[in-house]
Order: sequence, then C-alpha cells, then structure tokens
Amino acid sequence: MLLDLIHKRHSTRRYANRPIPREVLLRCIEAARLAPSACNGQPWKFIVVDDHALKDDLCEKAFSGIYSMNKFAKDSTALMVVVSEKEKFISAAGGRIRGTNYCLLDIGIACEHLILQATELGIGSCWIGWFDEKAVKRVLGIPNDRRVDVIISLGYYEEADLAPPRLRKPLEEIHAFNAYE
Amino acid sequence: MLLDLIHKRHSTRRYANRPIPREVLLRCIEAARLAPSACNGQPWKFIVVDDHALKDDLCEKAFSGIYSMNKFAKDSTALMVVVSEKEKFISAAGGRIRGTNYCLLDIGIACEHLILQATELGIGSCWIGWFDEKAVKRVLGIPNDRRVDVIISLGYYEEADLAPPRLRKPLEEIHAFNAYE
Repeated sequence: MLLDLIHKRHSTRRYANRPIPREVLLRCIEAARLAPSACNGQPWKFIVVDDHALKDDLCEKAFSGIYSMNKFAKDSTALMVVVSEKEKFISAAGGRIRGTNYCLLDIGIACEHLILQATELGIGSCWIGWFDEKAVKRVLGIPNDRRVDVIISLGYYEEADLAPPRLRKPLEEIHAFNAYE
Repeated sequence: MLLDLIHKRHSTRRYANRPIPREVLLRCIEAARLAPSACNGQPWKFIVVDDHALKDDLCEKAFSGIYSMNKFAKDSTALMVVVSEKEKFISAAGGRIRGTNYCLLDIGIACEHLILQATELGIGSCWIGWFDEKAVKRVLGIPNDRRVDVIISLGYYEEADLAPPRLRKPLEEIHAFNAYE
C-alpha cells in the first residue's frame, strides 16, 4: 500500500555498510524515468556516484564551509546527483508567463518516485538541496549551463533505522473545501 | 508494488460520472501531508473544489482565452487547487543563496504523493499548470501574496481508461555513472 511506503520513507543520515547493486540503482532511476513532467519535457539526468574515492572527493568539495551540515552524505553508499536539464521551449515559455519554474516541479516529482522506489527496496535516502553546486559541477564535468538543484544520498537502512515520529501540520490545517478560508 | 502504480498513473482527461467521497479526497491529502519538504516547511494548502456550481464557475474563469486548452477540467469530479504557502525563513533564505525555489520542489513531491494515492484508489488525475491564476484566487478568496502553481483535476477512471503507451526517453539517455558524459 502506498501509504505504508510513504510512512516508511524518512530522511536517513546513517546507512548500513553494504553496496547497492547497480541494477537496484537503475530500478530507482526507472521509477523516476516514468514520472510525468510539464509538456513531457523530462528535464532530468541522474549521475550516480558510487565510486568510493570519487564520492569522498565530491563530498569533501560539495559539503565544506557553509555547506558542512550535510557532511553525513559521505557515509552514504551512493549519491544521486540530479542534473536539471533544459526544458522544452513551450514549457519554459509558459513557465515564464506564469512565473513558475515548472522544471523544479518536475524534478520534485521524478526524485520522489526514485526515493519511494528506493524505500520499497529497503534503501534509505535523504534529499539534499544545500551544497556547493559549482564544486559538484567541476568534479563531475557537468556543463556550466545546467543546474544541479538536488542531490540524493542513498544507502541500505541499518537494522535499527526506523522512521521517527512524523512532525507534520494536522490535516485540518492544510485543507479546506470550496474556499480558502 | 510502487512501479505498478507509477505505470498506472497517466494524465486522465475523461472521468466517470461518479462523485468522489470526501473521505477518499482526504485520504489523498493525507498522503500529501506526509511528504518531505525543505526544512520541513510544508508550504502547501489544498483547496478541494467539489461543489458542482463552484467548479463550473472556477473552470469558466480559470480556463478561458489563452488557457482554454485545459477546459477538460470542467468534466472532472473535483479540482485540487494547490496553494503554495509561505516557506520557512531558513529555506527561503537558503533558496535565495542557491538560486533554487525549494517551495516548488516541495509542491512537486507532495502533489505526486496525492496523485499516486489517487491512482491507487482508482482515481484518474491530471497535473495542470496552465490557468489564469488571478481568476482562481478571486473565485476562491486566496490571498494575493500566495501563489497557485498547480491545479490537479480528479475523477474516477472510466472503465476503458487504460494508460496509453508511455513516451519517455530511454534509460540510457537519462543516467550515467560517476561522470556527466
């Protein structure tokens, strides 16, 4: 049941010391691949960093100084660096008129597919938006005209890693019927 | 299995003529409520429009002129108008430094939870980003300083409504290991 999966997913910052097979990582990307996007533009590319030395180097450069709160990513088994690719002209133009960067909505959808798929496969994850983007691009050879808005850290759950109590606004506070109120 | 659900979800623009009980709509919002967001800011409010006359009025005003391609929304059973609420100061400030509007990522995640939950319950949906936002705010009394980036149309699938073939880039095109390539 989807809601079980949603309950199970939580920000995981400690991971078991067990590699994630590449076919499992690809299964997570497959879930993202099927995500909807504005005008079906699919403005994403997933760079899997599972080489240990490269991951260390990337983490050292991406999570230093003001970004060091996310140093935990070094202990993950793989990093999914999500490149925001160019949108289709039509959705970019529409987005400009509406004042909405649809590409970010698309990245949110696709990455959550990836993360829920990882959860189903016993893999913990954490959304990371706070990192030195220039350093990430330099280390991975990502073109300057692309954006990296998100990195996802991945690793098998430790046995003891249970979802903590969920701190969310109550349902009453986030909905209304037929008027804003 | 999550991937079955992801395969089943598709943009649905024709709906069965059967009301969605409010507890079912609330179950969909519950799935969104549990979504992760930057600094746990939960910058969302879901306005359910299931009053028939109000829905007609809203659709007439939101989907006229250059927005009329989305007139199909009038045939949905309920509209989920998603209000992008104010972010926490810390994620807004971080977003400004990074040049990323995290709120949109959050809205993408939460709405896809809602949509996948709807799919599981036999309800078709369509993401709509192209509408007259000012008109929507006027009809529903949404404060001017809020944004409405997304509306989701909802309605039970018609019997014959099967997912069409999925047109997506091949997996090879959207991933790479350890370098951008």
